Amino acid sequence: MDAGHKFQVRKLEILDKSKGFIELLQQLTICDSVSDKDFEERFQEINSFGDDHLICVIEDDHSGKIIATGSVFIEKKFLRNCGKVGHIEDVVVDSAARGMQLGKKIIEFLTDHAHSMGCYKVILDCSLENKAFYEKCGYRQKEVQMVKYFV
Amino acid sequence: MDAGHKFQVRKLEILDKSKGFIELLQQLTICDSVSDKDFEERFQEINSFGDDHLICVIEDDHSGKIIATGSVFIEKKFLRNCGKVGHIEDVVVDSAARGMQLGKKIIEFLTDHAHSMGCYKVILDCSLENKAFYEKCGYRQKEVQMVKYFV
Repeated sequence: MDAGHKFQVRKLEILDKSKGFIELLQQLTICDSVSDKDFEERFQEINSFGDDHLICVIEDDHSGKIIATGSVFIEKKFLRNCGKVGHIEDVVVDSAARGMQLGKKIIEFLTDHAHSMGCYKVILDCSLENKAFYEKCGYRQKEVQMVKYFV
Repeated sequence: MDAGHKFQVRKLEILDKSKGFIELLQQLTICDSVSDKDFEERFQEINSFGDDHLICVIEDDHSGKIIATGSVFIEKKFLRNCGKVGHIEDVVVDSAARGMQLGKKIIEFLTDHAHSMGCYKVILDCSLENKAFYEKCGYRQKEVQMVKYFV
């Protein structure tokens, strides 16, 4: 891809399913194809949370494909004087579009959103190999992530 | 505390503010006193998510004090076939009530809730020193947690 592309971050739209959004997620983890009905139901479900659950994307204006995405949701707490925390999840950049700072754009967009929502912090989990990338985005390691799988 | 206590896990109720719920959170992190109005507003806000955001507590039936708590919220995704993930947060046991497996009871309650909600996994972040406790609860370390503070 050349430098003539514009790479604007915007909110996920329902038409993005036909622009390769699910295929992009498949680069991140297990993600079988999703029916239009399931996609629309989940889209509306997440949409109903308004600014408390934001999924953003970058569309390549030449190919019309979604080439980067990430999400953040806002958790409401009692501690920190009824504070809020942003949780960043599911950040992925198309393997053919690496090295153009798209991941950084996504993280900055999601971080700014959490900040504008009044969060006192924003957190995410990543592999050790991605730690340096997030440090460049202004994050630092704090704890360890524990997981239990049901399937 | 003796072994005659019953330690039942139940959902947070609005009256728990007067039973030391906020003081318990203060053992975990910064948590100034919260006004009744702020508490009720946040309580209703979280309550409006229904089973998607559950806060549980253990009340000491002798003292009438809240001595353990934890929360879990259900994140809705597109990946994993529109899967769901449980996020456990804000687990704390009263320092005077340690060693009675109350933390394990809280984690089991929250984990079971995430499972019953159809999550494919449940995750949490903890300090290295608490890792062994969560391993006893059936969790294993996966990634590292990164954080950015705004305040």
